[in-house]
Amino acid sequence: MKAKQKQYAIGVDYGTNSVRALVVDLADGAELASATFAYPSGEDGVLVSAKDPQLARQNPADYLAGFLDVVAKAVKQAARADKAFKAAHVVGIGVDTTGSTPIPVDKAGMPLALKPKFAKNPNAHAWLWKDHTAHAEAAAITEAAKKAGVPYLDKCGGTYSSEWFWSKIWHCLNVDKAVFDAAFSWVELCDFIPAWLCGDTDPLTLRRGICAAGHKAMFSAEWGGLPSKEFLAALSPRLAELRDRLYTQAVPSDWPAGRLSREIADQVGLPAGIAVAVGAFDAHHGAVGSGVKPGTLVKIVGTSTCDIMVAPAGAKVADIPGVCGIVPGSVLPGHLAVEAGQSAVGDIFKWYVDKHLPAAHAKGNPYASLEKEAARLAPGESGLLALDWHNGNRTILVDPLLTGGIVGLTLRTTPAEIYRALVEATAFGALVIVQRVEKYGIKIKEVVTCGGLAEKSPFMMQIYADVLNRPMRISRSAQSCALGAAMFGALAAGAFGGDAIRAQKAMTGTKAIVYKPIPANVKAYARLAALYRQLHDAFGVAGSAHGLANVMKDLVAIRTAARGGIKRRQVK
Amino acid sequence: MKAKQKQYAIGVDYGTNSVRALVVDLADGAELASATFAYPSGEDGVLVSAKDPQLARQNPADYLAGFLDVVAKAVKQAARADKAFKAAHVVGIGVDTTGSTPIPVDKAGMPLALKPKFAKNPNAHAWLWKDHTAHAEAAAITEAAKKAGVPYLDKCGGTYSSEWFWSKIWHCLNVDKAVFDAAFSWVELCDFIPAWLCGDTDPLTLRRGICAAGHKAMFSAEWGGLPSKEFLAALSPRLAELRDRLYTQAVPSDWPAGRLSREIADQVGLPAGIAVAVGAFDAHHGAVGSGVKPGTLVKIVGTSTCDIMVAPAGAKVADIPGVCGIVPGSVLPGHLAVEAGQSAVGDIFKWYVDKHLPAAHAKGNPYASLEKEAARLAPGESGLLALDWHNGNRTILVDPLLTGGIVGLTLRTTPAEIYRALVEATAFGALVIVQRVEKYGIKIKEVVTCGGLAEKSPFMMQIYADVLNRPMRISRSAQSCALGAAMFGALAAGAFGGDAIRAQKAMTGTKAIVYKPIPANVKAYARLAALYRQLHDAFGVAGSAHGLANVMKDLVAIRTAARGGIKRRQVK
Repeated sequence: MKAKQKQYAIGVDYGTNSVRALVVDLADGAELASATFAYPSGEDGVLVSAKDPQLARQNPADYLAGFLDVVAKAVKQAARADKAFKAAHVVGIGVDTTGSTPIPVDKAGMPLALKPKFAKNPNAHAWLWKDHTAHAEAAAITEAAKKAGVPYLDKCGGTYSSEWFWSKIWHCLNVDKAVFDAAFSWVELCDFIPAWLCGDTDPLTLRRGICAAGHKAMFSAEWGGLPSKEFLAALSPRLAELRDRLYTQAVPSDWPAGRLSREIADQVGLPAGIAVAVGAFDAHHGAVGSGVKPGTLVKIVGTSTCDIMVAPAGAKVADIPGVCGIVPGSVLPGHLAVEAGQSAVGDIFKWYVDKHLPAAHAKGNPYASLEKEAARLAPGESGLLALDWHNGNRTILVDPLLTGGIVGLTLRTTPAEIYRALVEATAFGALVIVQRVEKYGIKIKEVVTCGGLAEKSPFMMQIYADVLNRPMRISRSAQSCALGAAMFGALAAGAFGGDAIRAQKAMTGTKAIVYKPIPANVKAYARLAALYRQLHDAFGVAGSAHGLANVMKDLVAIRTAARGGIKRRQVK
Repeated sequence: MKAKQKQYAIGVDYGTNSVRALVVDLADGAELASATFAYPSGEDGVLVSAKDPQLARQNPADYLAGFLDVVAKAVKQAARADKAFKAAHVVGIGVDTTGSTPIPVDKAGMPLALKPKFAKNPNAHAWLWKDHTAHAEAAAITEAAKKAGVPYLDKCGGTYSSEWFWSKIWHCLNVDKAVFDAAFSWVELCDFIPAWLCGDTDPLTLRRGICAAGHKAMFSAEWGGLPSKEFLAALSPRLAELRDRLYTQAVPSDWPAGRLSREIADQVGLPAGIAVAVGAFDAHHGAVGSGVKPGTLVKIVGTSTCDIMVAPAGAKVADIPGVCGIVPGSVLPGHLAVEAGQSAVGDIFKWYVDKHLPAAHAKGNPYASLEKEAARLAPGESGLLALDWHNGNRTILVDPLLTGGIVGLTLRTTPAEIYRALVEATAFGALVIVQRVEKYGIKIKEVVTCGGLAEKSPFMMQIYADVLNRPMRISRSAQSCALGAAMFGALAAGAFGGDAIRAQKAMTGTKAIVYKPIPANVKAYARLAALYRQLHDAFGVAGSAHGLANVMKDLVAIRTAARGGIKRRQVK
């Protein structure tokens, strides 16, 4: 009996600092090979500005060079790793990227930054997701939508973000008219790459994904696509004109964007003509690659965190204030997707370790050294409470101008205590999101994490289990985003009969380890979470009038209780 | 013509970590020799507890050994340094110490801790000024005084502190009855040392200083000495009993405590029988040694900060809420003294450098490295704002349970920015005190600092000048406390006809350098100071209902303005 012909797909995952490619076996999700490419431009791949900490851009040339490098390497490695593998058996490619990362492009759809004239102008480059320069425009869009009584923000929590498509484009118009004028159109990175792979980047015809469109560009079938010309004209007539050079349709990632061009196929050693799936954001493909389903929150923990939840397409899900987006089909075909997230998680830990690490923890792996000491502390023992807003707050305050903070410092506060407080702060931030979506009808029974941080840090996972009071699992794949992308590559090629749920069952799963909530810690963290919420509201919600005078006293009382053994006679 | 016989006095200054002796020429304040002795017990001389960060005790044995060591060394060095010097020409000794640092003593007035039975019991040792274990008792004393309608807190800001005499003694009764029962009496360190030098420590007869009594023990001639038995009995009958074994009189430091005993004189190489002045707190003698006078705030900047101001004895000075003490004669004879202070200043910088210093600043002098980078920042540029309450707040909130904090953190925040924010926080804390005392009629025209920090850090001095908007000078002596103590040693011996102002003119002065406020910085800091005050009140004042939502936004706006060069078009 002849064995069934093996089939493979390739997932390409564009992260903040590097791009990865993964070669996957369709039968069981086995990962044959992977390769990564660190973006050579800027600081860890990000173009930054000493003058403006809110600026974050990327060089589009890095994206192109990166694809050619990682896919060629991964294909070669797959052949070395498994004799059964043949490049000819790769049926499709899927792509995910960071986002909203819009790129100004010329009439042919190629990035302006590739032209010598604009090579040194950061405004002509890709506007990376975490760029917050457009906060004033974001606030003005929110204001305008409220004033006009239009429903455009109903699907994205009622507040438009500086991280998103229109804010960035409008900011470009406001600060660099030359770039805005030179841009025939703007294309999300996740739409640009598949089009480029297919050899046709014409911005008027390239297929746009529902993921970027629905979550970041206020695109919805409910109101006929992008926001109306009238609405855009009220922001600026130039934005209304631009609308004609954008798109009227957006589709899920089980749709093909087209077929791999001969030119690129030859450079990476793949057959020309194989399917290229419509692109989506990394977190969305990561959620699929982690087995997202109703009741399961997938938390993609990386530099920032993205929380993805789904509900059956027919479910009644109210619009959720402060939550990034609710879009049909943007994650899992046939399901409503809810996206939320935290603007910085791993970035906060990295910030601490890269910039603030004291000598005592500098030997060996500093993360491990900090965690080892921090793990000995009971919840509340340090007396510290931090706010995880070092890069603003994406959900549910949607406010890029918020900043991080810490209270409870004493002359005995140690670095490990601060590090633990930072990890806890991100967990409290995660809890605020869970509480918000549950309040609006999306139940969360368990959390599946993906991203390197989840695998590397049992310390963090246990804190999250205790703070969220839910079991925490880890996606089986260390490359869940790329795995999800590969799965969509397969679907675009017609594998699994186009059934995403079947594909997900075959190709994804979780690791054996489960982090279960520890009741004593759950109780302690519930008290701290209430104080976090108090700071959160006092610092983050305009017009709130919380007296904060109890915060530090309560922290000391909790710390004392946690340390035990100190007599606290009532003074008569 | 025969030159006038040279005269010398010795000042002995008991600090938190060490004791210093200074040999001074009465004619011009010239310092012939000095010596220091680091207390051998505990952590940097402080007995601490891993279980309770609020505990801070000291071993009285270190005080005795320290005196014998430093005075003997200083006398020998003086003889080497100046051939004209002869030990026989030393006319008096003055002593200052930290405080309130009460010591439980036996019937002979000797510390219980010196007995083998109590040698390992921290409650039997000296209760160092910064011990905050008695916060509940302090709150109960404040409450009791308010309820009873007694005036005992009028001179100390309306709030009794956990750092002070009665709180500590009562806490000892509450947590360790065996020590309380064994203590015949309690003696402040500044009273104990002079008595011990004179060879008679009988607690019923040794001379107590008005400084410790008036500022820390609610002693005032206005209500006949210590608080009434009735009041103390309401706290605990045991405290009322103790009152009979304390004191009914307290005198200024220009009074002699007695004469140096033969036994000690022989050990340190001084003539027996010379005058020993009544003791006082370090900051008080430091203020005198720095030339305190009406209009001149002397700021003793060390691990903590003590602010001393004086007004002519006849001046109308209202009782000032939140200010540690207003006592006649406690600093400068013939003047009312006002004491205020911050619970931690140098301790905060030391905490950061000792525990949190990143490798980038670890080479050479870490303070200098941090300051060099931090000095390049404009006020507000970092976007950070810190609260200097790592060791609680002594003035004007009088709350040992408050803790430090920082807001405005971003992923680009550097260690030097944090360090600057900590220095600024202490300056803002200083400003709150200045504003409070001015509001109650004590004008502050200039600030004279003393303490090593003031000399070592032009960076800090300029920030203080800009935040306080007043010229900052530095006391000429690097040992102003010991110099003041020496001056009182001289006065106790009858030098200068017993006139403290004459003595001060002859023996004290300031350095040539003056740090003047820079108008642009003054303006920027006025904005930050308002935000500091908002945090201060929101976190520190029970029942305040400040919305804090503007704080971080304002910080970002200030940061952006400080960095300049970023276009901030108004979005239409």
